[in-house]
Amino acid sequence: MADHHTVGRQFVDYYYQAFDANRAGLAPLYRDMSMLTFEGQPTTGGKDIVEKLTSLPFRQVRHVVSTCDAQPGSPNGSILVTVTGQLLIDEETQPQFFTQTFHLYPENGSFFVYNDVFRLVLGM
Amino acid sequence: MADHHTVGRQFVDYYYQAFDANRAGLAPLYRDMSMLTFEGQPTTGGKDIVEKLTSLPFRQVRHVVSTCDAQPGSPNGSILVTVTGQLLIDEETQPQFFTQTFHLYPENGSFFVYNDVFRLVLGM
Repeated sequence: MADHHTVGRQFVDYYYQAFDANRAGLAPLYRDMSMLTFEGQPTTGGKDIVEKLTSLPFRQVRHVVSTCDAQPGSPNGSILVTVTGQLLIDEETQPQFFTQTFHLYPENGSFFVYNDVFRLVLGM
Repeated sequence: MADHHTVGRQFVDYYYQAFDANRAGLAPLYRDMSMLTFEGQPTTGGKDIVEKLTSLPFRQVRHVVSTCDAQPGSPNGSILVTVTGQLLIDEETQPQFFTQTFHLYPENGSFFVYNDVFRLVLGM
């Protein structure tokens, strides 16, 4: 199996490509026990998480990854991935900075999202 | 045992208070299997991690937490905590924005840091 850096980066590239093209397509990445905290709001379970993501009030979005760090998240093969980057939303020209943390659990040679925490980084 | 939000917030408050007062005092929070990725640089083991933290090139630092999110990190009682905030370093008046993710493992009724990922959020 690939090392955690490779898995983390491949996952992140895939995730944002899917998010930016068709958020409903993220459903296979979550399970019933998956957790999302989006700007402090908690949601549990793949169905509700994807409903939350698809209901976000923008039409077009583009994620640009600045940094992507990965570590083994446990001895059982899980991988912790943290991202910082920029969000370009609809016609806005000013990017917003964000950070997102994923905890990926192994399953049948692949991974699903167990933890997902998203925050805009504000203040400047 | 307290819920994950309470544990996460208490840990974060304690961690930055200790960091800002005396970085060497963080040693009891790490173990041999602990991992730190600081600005992309990986370090493993409590001894090397604290050496890394105490060697950072500033004398005075103050962390101001803006957001703190926590989720159960696994069925075994671990807790995932993600922070965004501002760093005030030495005599600089302009804060730097940072994000940090901790994965806390339970041990004898308390917790230690298994994963630790720190990043400055740059760009503006």
